[in-house]
Amino acid sequence: MSTPAAVVNVGADLFAEAVEDQAVPVTRVDWRPPMEGTEADLAAVAADPLRRTANERALAAMLDVTATLVDVAPASEVLGLQRGEFLHAGPPIAWERTSGPLRGALMGGAALEGLVDDPEAAVPLFESGTGVSLEPCHHRSAVGPMAGVVTPSMWMFVLEDQATGRRTYCSLNEGLGKVLRYGAYAPEVLTRLRWMGDVLGPLLRAAVRSRIDGGAGPVDVTGILTQMLQMGDEAHNRNRAGTLMLLRDLSPAMVLCSEEAGFDGADVAEALRFIGGNDHFFLNLAMPACKLALDAARGIEGSTMVVAMARNGTDFGIQVAGTGDEWFTGPAQLADGLFLGDYGPDDANPDIGDSAITETAGIGGFAMATAPAIVRFVGGSVPDALATTRRMHEITLGENPRWSVPVLEFQGTPTGIDVSKVCRTGILPQINTGMAGKVAGVGQVGAGLVTPPAEIFPQALSRLAALAAARTPS
Amino acid sequence: MSTPAAVVNVGADLFAEAVEDQAVPVTRVDWRPPMEGTEADLAAVAADPLRRTANERALAAMLDVTATLVDVAPASEVLGLQRGEFLHAGPPIAWERTSGPLRGALMGGAALEGLVDDPEAAVPLFESGTGVSLEPCHHRSAVGPMAGVVTPSMWMFVLEDQATGRRTYCSLNEGLGKVLRYGAYAPEVLTRLRWMGDVLGPLLRAAVRSRIDGGAGPVDVTGILTQMLQMGDEAHNRNRAGTLMLLRDLSPAMVLCSEEAGFDGADVAEALRFIGGNDHFFLNLAMPACKLALDAARGIEGSTMVVAMARNGTDFGIQVAGTGDEWFTGPAQLADGLFLGDYGPDDANPDIGDSAITETAGIGGFAMATAPAIVRFVGGSVPDALATTRRMHEITLGENPRWSVPVLEFQGTPTGIDVSKVCRTGILPQINTGMAGKVAGVGQVGAGLVTPPAEIFPQALSRLAALAAARTPS
Repeated sequence: MSTPAAVVNVGADLFAEAVEDQAVPVTRVDWRPPMEGTEADLAAVAADPLRRTANERALAAMLDVTATLVDVAPASEVLGLQRGEFLHAGPPIAWERTSGPLRGALMGGAALEGLVDDPEAAVPLFESGTGVSLEPCHHRSAVGPMAGVVTPSMWMFVLEDQATGRRTYCSLNEGLGKVLRYGAYAPEVLTRLRWMGDVLGPLLRAAVRSRIDGGAGPVDVTGILTQMLQMGDEAHNRNRAGTLMLLRDLSPAMVLCSEEAGFDGADVAEALRFIGGNDHFFLNLAMPACKLALDAARGIEGSTMVVAMARNGTDFGIQVAGTGDEWFTGPAQLADGLFLGDYGPDDANPDIGDSAITETAGIGGFAMATAPAIVRFVGGSVPDALATTRRMHEITLGENPRWSVPVLEFQGTPTGIDVSKVCRTGILPQINTGMAGKVAGVGQVGAGLVTPPAEIFPQALSRLAALAAARTPS
Repeated sequence: MSTPAAVVNVGADLFAEAVEDQAVPVTRVDWRPPMEGTEADLAAVAADPLRRTANERALAAMLDVTATLVDVAPASEVLGLQRGEFLHAGPPIAWERTSGPLRGALMGGAALEGLVDDPEAAVPLFESGTGVSLEPCHHRSAVGPMAGVVTPSMWMFVLEDQATGRRTYCSLNEGLGKVLRYGAYAPEVLTRLRWMGDVLGPLLRAAVRSRIDGGAGPVDVTGILTQMLQMGDEAHNRNRAGTLMLLRDLSPAMVLCSEEAGFDGADVAEALRFIGGNDHFFLNLAMPACKLALDAARGIEGSTMVVAMARNGTDFGIQVAGTGDEWFTGPAQLADGLFLGDYGPDDANPDIGDSAITETAGIGGFAMATAPAIVRFVGGSVPDALATTRRMHEITLGENPRWSVPVLEFQGTPTGIDVSKVCRTGILPQINTGMAGKVAGVGQVGAGLVTPPAEIFPQALSRLAALAAARTPS
């Protein structure tokens, strides 16, 4: 066939990409209008003399972080969490506005802490607010998947940026189905959590410390993320290879340290089986690794880069490098996806969890091209998965050279969501997510694809524009 | 842009595929001539009334096999290998014609067995042939990577097809670099092999048996292959995910059985580290799993399906379902690829090893589309890797529905190489491979891409034609 000299392509689609792959010159024509009403703010932010450098600094700071697993310890110890204090996913929320799965997780957490005997008895406690308080994980350098409830007795992964000593935290992953983070609180949920507190947490602590004491060093979480992105994981809803690499890195130390830590072979074997049987176990390391990277970009004046996306099951909130700790929130959306068993769309709660920190850092939904098998879990098609990663490059500041996508010829994942680019293109960040049942106690009902509510980006842009204006001498 | 109504495309290339992905009708025009001199044999084989059904049976028999790991045991025990008997990769060969890496491995094997103290002293032994004999692994239901040397004291994985009880065997993988299978025989090579015989083999045997006795059953090797093909492995030169899944499946049993088997925590930890530190460990399970499947198709009269491709470092041989145990051989080729350290093309031995059994079964080079990161190990480009899997569909009888490639929208891997199709299209099977140093003792020098010598396919076709003619009443 004859090779066309040039092709004009409107919008981003796979055909354009395919033609580019054949080295035919392609002119992209982007016809998308900016989000309604954002023109003036876009112009103001574009004119901010700090913006370009601030964004370069924000992106560089984030890419510079390497996360290592340095300890495993109870939340009471490392977060200073007191009896009656509950952390949760997403932006701040009061009990009255909480969704079913967050309520269910809080009720189960209250029972786990012995505040009540029966999770159902916790409702009046939270209604009265006596002796209990709610606070976002993000406000304590932590992240929690789904409901993200953390109580003082829960054991946390402790991640550290070796260059700065900064730390982030996340609970241990319970598995899928009927688990606390999806709002389930049946007796078996609490039994599992107690075993995690009595055996899994202490054994992992002993193993992590034994690795460090023995000279093998802390587990290189960023390194595992790099590898797993070449092994079909996108590190949000596929964490299979990551989980297996964690097991590889910890199992020798688990064997060697178990006796001294007071555990026998049966405990070690059960812990190995539990981790190996839970493909999502590594998610709870991927998330704090992403937060550790993004936190390095917080508080950079003039930067339009998103540093957190998080949902509490009612509200979806973002925080931006240039706007401090302020949350810009809107209603959490319903995911579109695949359902477990007989569950359907009517059973699902709106989007919930801090796990969108993965997309914020350029993996998860942003890296679906490297994990096409995920469409069997969250829905969509393989071409969609490839197109999604390509599309996310349109709203990000750069690429992460460490996290490369082999099938896209080792291009780095799209990294650093730019509020300006989102508003200018109308392209929303693509998140893939588990779906919790909307009724407290149910647990997981499916998994799917979702975006933030569009309006939070113009909100953030407006604040950025106001801050830029305030800085400009009149 | 306007959508073209139709595109005519000559030959197979990525652009055609990309256009097809956009649902534009494509007419493929294959201009490739048949291999020279094969026209009459192609016609004779095409007219063989047994051919179609025989190939359907061969493919179905192969796809029907599931491989499980049922035991680990010394070759003396499970292969009846006696002192002085050496197995090797590829078709039969006498010492005089052996290449450097096969010589090196035989010399090291002789020292391992105590036939000589120093590997160098083994040369006269093999030259005289007194008390030593060489035989292909394939003749004992076994396969061996690279030199493929097996001696009586080496421990073997024992794989079984649960439906029929048929078994195949493969040694334990030593890792990369200076290892016996690449022709190295330095003291550290033999020390490692002795540890594998004293600790690793017996510990794995105890774990495999303990799983079976405990009700967890044998390790599902075919199931791991299915998963790893969705995790960036093609199961020839990438076996990372496969190795980690094996570790996941065996580590709890290794912990639980170790004391009874006479090993302590340090032994278990060392074994876990050894396996976890060797991304190629699972190759030695992938290979016998492929042989187990392909052996089911041996001896089917009229079938033109290849049931083995194997190289001894001098000759490349194939066996075909319809031609019994006959080898069709030609000179092994030099691979084109990437070299370790300062090594270059002049240091490499021609193609060696039974590991092309993976390509024969539809994985390895045939599944490179699912493992694009492999181009960093064997060379080539990502589009090449995708195109290779597509191209192999042109010379295969079908697809393996169990082994699907997510990025090709879950298409099964191209499976069952058809001698007729190879001769008719001139497309040679694509193999990816490690490269051994051509001098005995050196070890691995690189990895790359290679094909069989073209002439062995017309040889096999000619025999198939003769057999068909002999069956036809004149």
